[in-house]
Amino acid sequence: MKRVYNFSAGPAVLPEEVLKEAAEEMLSYQGTGMSVMEMSHRSKTIENMIAEAEQDLRDLLNIPANYKVLFLQGGATLQFSMVPMNLMKNRVADYLNTGQWAKKALTEAKLYGKVNVIASSEDKNYSYIPDLKGLKFSEDADYVYICHNNTIFGTRFTELPEVGDKPLVADMSSNFLSEPIDVSKFGLIFAGAQKNIGPAGVVVVIIREDLVTDDVLPGTPTMLKYKVHVENNSAYNTPPVYGIYICGKVFKWLKKLGGLEAMKKINEEKAAILYDYLDNSKMFKGTVVKKDRSLMNVPFVTGNADLDAKFIKEAKEAGFENLKGYRTVGGMRASIYNAMPIQGVKELVEFMRQFEEKNLNSL
Amino acid sequence: MKRVYNFSAGPAVLPEEVLKEAAEEMLSYQGTGMSVMEMSHRSKTIENMIAEAEQDLRDLLNIPANYKVLFLQGGATLQFSMVPMNLMKNRVADYLNTGQWAKKALTEAKLYGKVNVIASSEDKNYSYIPDLKGLKFSEDADYVYICHNNTIFGTRFTELPEVGDKPLVADMSSNFLSEPIDVSKFGLIFAGAQKNIGPAGVVVVIIREDLVTDDVLPGTPTMLKYKVHVENNSAYNTPPVYGIYICGKVFKWLKKLGGLEAMKKINEEKAAILYDYLDNSKMFKGTVVKKDRSLMNVPFVTGNADLDAKFIKEAKEAGFENLKGYRTVGGMRASIYNAMPIQGVKELVEFMRQFEEKNLNSL
Repeated sequence: MKRVYNFSAGPAVLPEEVLKEAAEEMLSYQGTGMSVMEMSHRSKTIENMIAEAEQDLRDLLNIPANYKVLFLQGGATLQFSMVPMNLMKNRVADYLNTGQWAKKALTEAKLYGKVNVIASSEDKNYSYIPDLKGLKFSEDADYVYICHNNTIFGTRFTELPEVGDKPLVADMSSNFLSEPIDVSKFGLIFAGAQKNIGPAGVVVVIIREDLVTDDVLPGTPTMLKYKVHVENNSAYNTPPVYGIYICGKVFKWLKKLGGLEAMKKINEEKAAILYDYLDNSKMFKGTVVKKDRSLMNVPFVTGNADLDAKFIKEAKEAGFENLKGYRTVGGMRASIYNAMPIQGVKELVEFMRQFEEKNLNSL
Repeated sequence: MKRVYNFSAGPAVLPEEVLKEAAEEMLSYQGTGMSVMEMSHRSKTIENMIAEAEQDLRDLLNIPANYKVLFLQGGATLQFSMVPMNLMKNRVADYLNTGQWAKKALTEAKLYGKVNVIASSEDKNYSYIPDLKGLKFSEDADYVYICHNNTIFGTRFTELPEVGDKPLVADMSSNFLSEPIDVSKFGLIFAGAQKNIGPAGVVVVIIREDLVTDDVLPGTPTMLKYKVHVENNSAYNTPPVYGIYICGKVFKWLKKLGGLEAMKKINEEKAAILYDYLDNSKMFKGTVVKKDRSLMNVPFVTGNADLDAKFIKEAKEAGFENLKGYRTVGGMRASIYNAMPIQGVKELVEFMRQFEEKNLNSL
C-alpha cells in the first residue's frame, strides 16, 4: 500500500496518521461498538466530539469569545450565497476580484444587491494582488469581501484592506490554518474543508456575534440562516458528522505539531524550497508576482505546452500526483498544503532538477 | 472490538462489510496511494466512482431514463427549501401532514407560496396515515408532497395519493431502498443518506427531467438549483466525495444481497418478528395503527415511563443501543433499517421477552 505525494489543489492530501486512526476506529469509535458514521448527532459521544473539534479550532486560531464557530454543508460555494443573504442589509457590498472564486462569489452576490468591485487583478490573469492603499469603499457597503488565498492563481493577501468598521469577509478555503491569523480583523471567515482541513462536505464558518441576526433577506431558506445554526450548535439538521470527525483529528494533529506558528514555519520552509528552485531554474518559472506568492498553491510553467505535458506525465509515473495546472493558467501547480510533508517538496524539486537537466535542450 | 446492535433512527447502522472495506481502503483506494478523501472530484477515479454509484442506484430502483440522479449536500432539510424554490411556479402546493418532518417541510414551503394542507394526522399524534380516498387537490398546485415513511412516529404510506398529472414529491429519507418502488409515480424523490444509505452529509435526489428547469423563484441561490447540479453531474462544486463512496458501497451490498425484492423480504421478516411480539406482549405495545406500520421504525411503549426508562437502560447494558423513543412519542423506538441484521431483531425480541417476564409485576 505505497502512498504517493499528492499535490492536488483539493480535495487534497491529509496527514497519514489521521487516516490511520480513522481506519482503526472505523468499526468501533471509543469502544462504543459503532462507527462514527453510525452514531446519532444527538448522542453525547458525538456532541462531545463536535464540541472538542470546535474547542481545538478555537485554541489553534485564538478565536475571540465573541465569535461563533460553525461546521456546515454546501462548501464555500454555498457561502457565496449565505454571505449576502445574511449580511446584505443595505443590499450593497464591496468585492475584491482576485481570482476565479472571488469572481464566482461576487457574481452570486449580484443576485441580491449592488456589488462594487473596488479592486481587480483580472487584467493580468490574476497574477497579483491589487494595491490595497487608496481602496475606495462604498459608504453604504454592508461588508467588504476578499478571497484570502487564490487557489488557482497562486496568490495571497499578505496584508488586509483597512476596512474600518465594515465587516471584512474572507474566503480562506485554501489557506485556512496554514499560519496564524488575527480573527478579530474579520467579520466572517469561511473555509471549505477539502483543502487544508479534512474531507469535502464540511465548510467551517467563523462569524462575529453581532453579524448573527434574524434580519436576513426575504426568502432566505432556514438552512441558510447563520442564526439558526448558531442557536443549534451546528446541529439544526444532521451535520456531516464523519467529516467533522476527520477535521477534529486534523486539528489535534496541528496542536501536536506545535500549533499554527510551527505550521507556518514548516509551510514557509516548503514554499521556499520550491520558489527558490523556480527562481533559479532555466526551465521552470513561477507565474505570480513574487511579493504576492501563496504559501499553499504554487503554479509554474516551462513556457512550452508539450514539455509541460511531458513533465506532468513523468512526474506522475514517479509518484508525484496531480501536478497539472488549472486550465486558465496552464502548466503545472503544486499545492503544498499543511499535510504535504517537507520530504515531498524536496523530492519534487529533485525530480524537477533531473527533468530540467535531461530536457533542457527541448526548450 | 465488539460491535453492538444499533437501533438508532439516524445516523444509523451500516453494513459491517462496507465499514471493513472502507477501513481497508483508507490509505490507498484502488492502488492509487491516496485515500478517497484526498482525491480530486475531477479525477477519473472519482468521476468513475460517482458514475458507478449512480448506475448501481439506477439498477436497484429501476430508475427510468427520464429521471436524473443527484448526490447533494444539506440533507433532507435543505430539500424542504429546494423543492418549493424550484417547483413552485404558481406559488401553490399541496402537503400531507403526517409527521414532524412533513410539518417542517410545509412550514418551510410557506416562505415561498400558499401551502394547502390537504390531509393531516396531527389530531392523533401522527399515529396513522390519513385516508387517501377523496383527497381534494388544489387546482393550481405545483406539486403534491408526502413524507413516505415517518421516522419519529413509525408510519408509512402503503399506497400513494392519486395525484393525476401533478408531480408527487416524496421525502423517503427513512425508507429509501427498503423495498422496490415505482419511481415513475413520482416527480421528485429525495432521501437523506444517514438512515438507510450511508453517512450524514449526502442527500440523494431523483428528479423527473421535465421538472429540471431554469424557471426557479427569484433569489434562488445557484447551489439550490436542480438544473445546475444536473448539468454538472452533481459536481458543480466539490461534492461530498467520501459520503458518496460509502453510499456506493451500500448500493453494491444491496445488489449482492439480491436487490430490493430480496431486501424487502428480509425487512418484512424483521418487522414481523418485532410486531408479532408486540401484538402478543402483555407489557409492550406498538403506538401505530396496524395497517400503517412502518417497516423501518417501530415505536413501542409500556405505558409506564419508569419501566420504559428501566428497559432502555438494561437494553443498553445488554448491547442494544439507541432504543429511546423520540420525545413527542415517548417510550421506545427500534429503527430496523436495511443494515440491521435479522439476528439483531431476534435477540432484541428475546431480550424484551425476558424483561417482560421479570418485570410484569411492575406494570
